Amino acid sequence: MNSTTVIAICSIITAGVTIGLGSIAPALGEGRAVSTALTSLAQQPDAAKTITRTLFVGLAMIESIAIYCLVVSMILIFANPFWNHVIAHATGK
Amino acid sequence: MNSTTVIAICSIITAGVTIGLGSIAPALGEGRAVSTALTSLAQQPDAAKTITRTLFVGLAMIESIAIYCLVVSMILIFANPFWNHVIAHATGK
Amino acid sequence: MNSTTVIAICSIITAGVTIGLGSIAPALGEGRAVSTALTSLAQQPDAAKTITRTLFVGLAMIESIAIYCLVVSMILIFANPFWNHVIAHATGK
Amino acid sequence: MNSTTVIAICSIITAGVTIGLGSIAPALGEGRAVSTALTSLAQQPDAAKTITRTLFVGLAMIESIAIYCLVVSMILIFANPFWNHVIAHATGK
Amino acid sequence: MNSTTVIAICSIITAGVTIGLGSIAPALGEGRAVSTALTSLAQQPDAAKTITRTLFVGLAMIESIAIYCLVVSMILIFANPFWNHVIAHATGK
Amino acid sequence: MNSTTVIAICSIITAGVTIGLGSIAPALGEGRAVSTALTSLAQQPDAAKTITRTLFVGLAMIESIAIYCLVVSMILIFANPFWNHVIAHATGK
Amino acid sequence: MNSTTVIAICSIITAGVTIGLGSIAPALGEGRAVSTALTSLAQQPDAAKTITRTLFVGLAMIESIAIYCLVVSMILIFANPFWNHVIAHATGK
Amino acid sequence: MNSTTVIAICSIITAGVTIGLGSIAPALGEGRAVSTALTSLAQQPDAAKTITRTLFVGLAMIESIAIYCLVVSMILIFANPFWNHVIAHATGK
Amino acid sequence: MNSTTVIAICSIITAGVTIGLGSIAPALGEGRAVSTALTSLAQQPDAAKTITRTLFVGLAMIESIAIYCLVVSMILIFANPFWNHVIAHATGK
Amino acid sequence: MNSTTVIAICSIITAGVTIGLGSIAPALGEGRAVSTALTSLAQQPDAAKTITRTLFVGLAMIESIAIYCLVVSMILIFANPFWNHVIAHATGK
Amino acid sequence: MNSTTVIAICSIITAGVTIGLGSIAPALGEGRAVSTALTSLAQQPDAAKTITRTLFVGLAMIESIAIYCLVVSMILIFANPFWNHVIAHATGK
Amino acid sequence: MNSTTVIAICSIITAGVTIGLGSIAPALGEGRAVSTALTSLAQQPDAAKTITRTLFVGLAMIESIAIYCLVVSMILIFANPFWNHVIAHATGK
Amino acid sequence: MNSTTVIAICSIITAGVTIGLGSIAPALGEGRAVSTALTSLAQQPDAAKTITRTLFVGLAMIESIAIYCLVVSMILIFANPFWNHVIAHATGK
Amino acid sequence: MNSTTVIAICSIITAGVTIGLGSIAPALGEGRAVSTALTSLAQQPDAAKTITRTLFVGLAMIESIAIYCLVVSMILIFANPFWNHVIAHATGK
Repeated sequence: MNSTTVIAICSIITAGVTIGLGSIAPALGEGRAVSTALTSLAQQPDAAKTITRTLFVGLAMIESIAIYCLVVSMILIFANPFWNHVIAHATGK
Repeated sequence: MNSTTVIAICSIITAGVTIGLGSIAPALGEGRAVSTALTSLAQQPDAAKTITRTLFVGLAMIESIAIYCLVVSMILIFANPFWNHVIAHATGK
Repeated sequence: MNSTTVIAICSIITAGVTIGLGSIAPALGEGRAVSTALTSLAQQPDAAKTITRTLFVGLAMIESIAIYCLVVSMILIFANPFWNHVIAHATGK
Repeated sequence: MNSTTVIAICSIITAGVTIGLGSIAPALGEGRAVSTALTSLAQQPDAAKTITRTLFVGLAMIESIAIYCLVVSMILIFANPFWNHVIAHATGK
Repeated sequence: MNSTTVIAICSIITAGVTIGLGSIAPALGEGRAVSTALTSLAQQPDAAKTITRTLFVGLAMIESIAIYCLVVSMILIFANPFWNHVIAHATGK
Repeated sequence: MNSTTVIAICSIITAGVTIGLGSIAPALGEGRAVSTALTSLAQQPDAAKTITRTLFVGLAMIESIAIYCLVVSMILIFANPFWNHVIAHATGK
Repeated sequence: MNSTTVIAICSIITAGVTIGLGSIAPALGEGRAVSTALTSLAQQPDAAKTITRTLFVGLAMIESIAIYCLVVSMILIFANPFWNHVIAHATGK
Repeated sequence: MNSTTVIAICSIITAGVTIGLGSIAPALGEGRAVSTALTSLAQQPDAAKTITRTLFVGLAMIESIAIYCLVVSMILIFANPFWNHVIAHATGK
Repeated sequence: MNSTTVIAICSIITAGVTIGLGSIAPALGEGRAVSTALTSLAQQPDAAKTITRTLFVGLAMIESIAIYCLVVSMILIFANPFWNHVIAHATGK
Repeated sequence: MNSTTVIAICSIITAGVTIGLGSIAPALGEGRAVSTALTSLAQQPDAAKTITRTLFVGLAMIESIAIYCLVVSMILIFANPFWNHVIAHATGK
Repeated sequence: MNSTTVIAICSIITAGVTIGLGSIAPALGEGRAVSTALTSLAQQPDAAKTITRTLFVGLAMIESIAIYCLVVSMILIFANPFWNHVIAHATGK
Repeated sequence: MNSTTVIAICSIITAGVTIGLGSIAPALGEGRAVSTALTSLAQQPDAAKTITRTLFVGLAMIESIAIYCLVVSMILIFANPFWNHVIAHATGK
Repeated sequence: MNSTTVIAICSIITAGVTIGLGSIAPALGEGRAVSTALTSLAQQPDAAKTITRTLFVGLAMIESIAIYCLVVSMILIFANPFWNHVIAHATGK
Repeated sequence: MNSTTVIAICSIITAGVTIGLGSIAPALGEGRAVSTALTSLAQQPDAAKTITRTLFVGLAMIESIAIYCLVVSMILIFANPFWNHVIAHATGK
């Protein structure tokens, strides 16, 4: 099990775990936000415009956290500096 | 247990765990959103149009998080750069 | 314990765990959605048509997440690319 | 502990764990749905027909998730492709 | 510790864990359903017939999930194909 | 540590864990059911007959799940087919 | 560490864990039942007779589950068939 | 680490864990029961006699479960049949 | 690491864990009981005598469970039969 | 790693864990009791004397449980019989 | 597995875990804040301006905590002083 | 890894864990007490004096539990009898 | 794996875990504080000034706890005394 | 891995974990206290002075617990007696 293999393994596992773990809270948070938006709409239909706008800003901020995780996960799969270093080292050798 | 095998194993396990773990929160979040939508509809049938539209936008955003996990899971099974590298290396040799 | 065996083992365990883990949240989410639908029906029988329709759309989306897990689980059992590679390699040899 | 044994062991354990784990959420979800149906019936006896019908559709969808787990569990015990491969291999040899 | 022993051990442990784990959710679900049925009966004694009937259908469906686990557990103890294979193999030899 | 010993150990541990684990949910479920029955009786003393009857049917069904665990536990201690096989094998030898 | 010792150890540990684990849920369940009985008595003192009777039947059923665990625990300490077998074997030898 | 030592260790640990684990639920259950008794007394001082009597019966039953654990714990320390067997064996030898 | 040392270690650890673990539930239970007593006193100051008396009986019973753990813990430190046996054995030898 | 060292290590770790673990529940319980006392005072300022007295008795009893843990922890650090035995043994030797 | 590899592995895993773990609480916190903002808007549409402003300040502070985690994660991937030291050391050598 | 080192390690880890673990409950308990004090003050400003006094007594008692943990933690770092013994022993030697 | 490497690894992992773990509670606490501020603003718009000021003081204190973790995390990465010592030692040598 | 290294590692990890773990409860407790302060302010704006003062005293006491953890964490990094001893020993030697 040489260096290349070990780093590949770690990158695979970490990429999966990062997005798997990072999807929990944003999904719950968004579910909660959407849920309250619906309650509020039913309670005060006249404020639909303000509510919807605030909801979308909030969803965007929560989604951004999920995006952070996806970004780290993608960096680990497709733009991993440690992998590149090891591959370059292995090839150069 | 050579490099090819080890990477295959990691990819299999990680793919399964990622989607398994990543399905928890979106499903709970959507369950909550749908649930509140139904309560709101029963409470304010006249706002059905706004509620349904907001619900679908919300479900789409929550579903997108589950899709992120599915995408990472599928990348690990069918478009795994580490696997491709090792296979190419093994074949070229 | 050669490569074929190890990959078979991982595929079996991961397939089981994926669907086992992936069934938790959709079932809870659907239970919640159905549960609220019934409350809403009892509260506002006149809106039964809208409620039922929204419920079924919601159940379909939640069920889709369970289906993702089942699909990954079935891919790992019956269309596993890593397994096919190893079998082909073992046979060709 | 040859290949045949190891795969048999994994299949046994995974089959049990899959159905054991997969029974948790559906049972809780159904318990919740039935529970709310009863509350709704007591609250609005006139809507009994709609409530009961919606309940049964919902129970069917939740039960389907438990069935997925049972199916994977049964496949692992009685129609396991990896086991068949290893047995065929062992016999052919 | 030959193959026969190992498979026997796994079957014993899995059988116990499966029914032990699989009894949690159905028992909680049934407890909840029965509990709500009693509340509903106290609230609306006139609907006792509908409530009781719906309760029994619901209990039957939840119990069915516990039965799945018992069935898998019994299959592993008394009709285990892997055990039969190994015994046959050991005897035939 | 020969085969006989190992199987004995597993049977002992599994028997204890099965009933220990399997007692959790039924006891909680029954506690809940009894608890609601008492509330209902206090609220609607006239329906005592229906309530008590429904309670006992429900308790019987929940108890049945605890019985499943006790049965598997007793089978593992007193009618264990794997133990019998190993003992017979050891004696016959 | 011969067979006798190992089986003794397992029996000791399992006996303790079984009753320790098995005491959790019955105690909580009974606590809940007693607790509701007291609330009900305070709310409807006239129904004291029915309430007390139902409470005692319920406590008896919940206690029975704790008794199952105690019975298995005592069997493992004082009437353990595996221990008897090993002792007999060791003595006969 | 001979047999005597190992069995002594197991007995010590199990005795401690059994009573430690077994004290959780009874204490919580009694806390709940006492707590509700006080609420009920404040709400219905006239029923103090019935409430107190029911409380004491209930506490006795919950305490009995803690006693089971203490009994098993004491048996393991002072009347352990496995320990006695090993000591006798060691002495006789 | 001879027998004396091992038994000393186990006794130390178990003594600490037993009282540490055993202090959780009684403290929570007493906190709950005291808490409700205060609520009840504020609600019904006239019943202060009955409430206080019932509270003290209840606290005594809950405290008794903590005492069981302390007793086992002290027995393990200062009157440990296994330790005495090993010391006697070591000295006698 | 001779006996003296091992026993010292165990005593250090156990002493820390015991008080660390044992501080959880008393602090929560006292927090709850104080919290309710304040609510009661705000609700019924006239009963301040009775409430404060009952609170202090209750706090004393809960604190006593934390003291048990501190006592065991201090015994393990400063009056550890096992440590004394080993030191005496090591010195005498 | 030389130093370079080990440090690369740790950096990969830690980077993923840090952002994965660090996304949980901010997402939940923001979900809660957005959710309450919507309720407040529905309840008091006139205060929309103050509410929205306070919401955005709050979201910014919560988001800053997620940013801390992202920053540490990025530092570990792209500006890791330990990695730089080891690479420089390896190159210089 | 000689005795001095091992004891130093244990002391460091235990000191950290003790205060880390021991800070959880007091902080939560105090948070709860302060929180209720504020509610009570808002509800009954006239009783501010009694409430504040009771609050401070309560906080002092809860804080004392955190102090116990800090004391044990400090003893382990700066006045550790086992460390002193080993250092003395090592020096004397 | 020489000393330099090991200390680098520990610093990396600890830095990530510290901020990852340390972000949980502050984010939840701030989410709660912001959330209540919004409710309070909707309920009492006239007190907006006092509420906002108190909110910001509170957020600052909670944020300070997250800062403590960030500081420790940064010290471990960029001003680690142990790392400096080892590097100096390695260089000097 | 000599003594110096091991102690450095333990100090690093413990320092991080202590503050990471120790930040959980104070942050939650402060979040709760601030949250209730805001509710109280909205409910009783006239008592703002008393409420704010009590809040700050409470926050100070809760913050002090987080400070204890920070202090222990800093002692372990910058004024660690065990580290100093080992360094002195290593240097002197």
